[in-house]
Amino acid sequence: MTRPPLARLLAEAQPGVLLFAITPPRRSAPVERVKEIAAVTLDRLAPLDLDGLILYDIDDESDRNPAERPFPYLPTLDPAVYHAEHLGDWDRPVVIYRCVGKYGSRELSDWLRGCDPERVLSVFVGASSGDKPARTDLREAQALRQAVRPDLPLGGVVISERTDEHLRMLAKQERGCGFFVSQVVYDVNETKNLVSDYFYACAARGVAPRTVVFTLSLCGSLKTLEFLRWLGVDVPRWFQNSVRHAADPLAESYRQTMAMARDLADFCEHLGMPYGFNIESVSIRKAEIEATTDLAAEVGALLRG
Amino acid sequence: MTRPPLARLLAEAQPGVLLFAITPPRRSAPVERVKEIAAVTLDRLAPLDLDGLILYDIDDESDRNPAERPFPYLPTLDPAVYHAEHLGDWDRPVVIYRCVGKYGSRELSDWLRGCDPERVLSVFVGASSGDKPARTDLREAQALRQAVRPDLPLGGVVISERTDEHLRMLAKQERGCGFFVSQVVYDVNETKNLVSDYFYACAARGVAPRTVVFTLSLCGSLKTLEFLRWLGVDVPRWFQNSVRHAADPLAESYRQTMAMARDLADFCEHLGMPYGFNIESVSIRKAEIEATTDLAAEVGALLRG
Repeated sequence: MTRPPLARLLAEAQPGVLLFAITPPRRSAPVERVKEIAAVTLDRLAPLDLDGLILYDIDDESDRNPAERPFPYLPTLDPAVYHAEHLGDWDRPVVIYRCVGKYGSRELSDWLRGCDPERVLSVFVGASSGDKPARTDLREAQALRQAVRPDLPLGGVVISERTDEHLRMLAKQERGCGFFVSQVVYDVNETKNLVSDYFYACAARGVAPRTVVFTLSLCGSLKTLEFLRWLGVDVPRWFQNSVRHAADPLAESYRQTMAMARDLADFCEHLGMPYGFNIESVSIRKAEIEATTDLAAEVGALLRG
Repeated sequence: MTRPPLARLLAEAQPGVLLFAITPPRRSAPVERVKEIAAVTLDRLAPLDLDGLILYDIDDESDRNPAERPFPYLPTLDPAVYHAEHLGDWDRPVVIYRCVGKYGSRELSDWLRGCDPERVLSVFVGASSGDKPARTDLREAQALRQAVRPDLPLGGVVISERTDEHLRMLAKQERGCGFFVSQVVYDVNETKNLVSDYFYACAARGVAPRTVVFTLSLCGSLKTLEFLRWLGVDVPRWFQNSVRHAADPLAESYRQTMAMARDLADFCEHLGMPYGFNIESVSIRKAEIEATTDLAAEVGALLRG
């Protein structure tokens, strides 16, 4: 049986959504190199039974943390442009992220008008810190989409480390968000707290909970660990210890990430909460990127098996 | 093959120790009632493949929390007396708790001299708050045992909610503790943090880690939840939500507790950390006590299966 397209899976809050997230190549890369990267990426993803591909919109987040960024910030191609010009061979939907603060409202509404809801979904991300000047803020962007392109499926980000995040989710839902994608998950306990709070708050209001897609990422080196912490991800001490001490931190991280996936899947299924997974690599190291493809395959087997 | 006695399992840090903990009957109960309780208890425990029975020494802990105690404090029989006079039919070892602050050093050393290390182990518990006048403090009691009865296997309590608890464990170990029994565990993440910190601190010092016995207890009602929180146990919000909302909180708690047991067993085995479980009921409700026996059987199957 053919699986319904991503937009329908999310609209119907069907469980088991599987996404994979990539960051477009650097803006400075020559076009031949960009083509090569796109081909290699699609090759790598072809065997995976993905419901869609997330394309991140990278913002310079140096304002969120004054400490030096462990991996350097390099401007990347616009995800919509990368999609249009280089991912023509990708026949499944894409979820285009928009750091809305980077764009003026004219620019944003032009893009909204032009995109094809059969192939494209979007997730709007607000500014990384309140102090940063935002050309469009999150609410304005959500209102714009509501006015210009209400048929474009819109998602919101969820960060389990924030208090009252479940209330923020409900507010986003009222402003048109039909699904959520989490930040990288390492603290299963906090994530369960959030899902549980959200689920029961929905029940109390008589609102149907929307799918939450949990982002999983391996952490196979101290450098990656350092980066995760720089990003503000809550990495439990025991997980940090195991990356520091394990003979093979990548294998250790793989094992623990699969255990987290099983735990969250079990938790959501028992609760009756629609969920899915998004697999990404925050690292730019080859071994971690390759293991990430294996992880996506194994998480896919967990969801569909 | 016959399983080695508890003292040897702990001395050799063999994995898979299974204990069950009970609180002696109220001091005000008529002797006939005490006999009856002992018989019913031993009947209930007989089918379980326990390595030993923990007998708690209950202290009036009202000083630790000014809020009203959800289950009333009632003085209970001395665990050593209960053991000697009523548990003659129990042919396996017992771990007698001693809230050392309740006893003078003469009283404590008399007891230490009189007990049989073939049948008895002990766990010393310090005062529940620093302000409380203690007749003997924890270090004095540990020194006393070292002087009077070094052959009596001694354990210490561990509370994963405390910061730097792993350093406290190492210090207790230097003062003669050969194993640890945790407070009731509900926050697996914090417990893993503690075990991980302890394990790697042992490795850094070239010290062999001692067995940690994790205490599991069901929470099948709001009253029990209230009591756990009064005791200072860190119960994750998602767990609290599920007890509040589940149609059958006891079944829900049972399911979650087994999941915790599997998670901790898997974690310790992978790390190479010696561990075991202790099953108890903090509740005095019949349904919860009965489900606790089932829990012990299923945890036993997990350990020995």
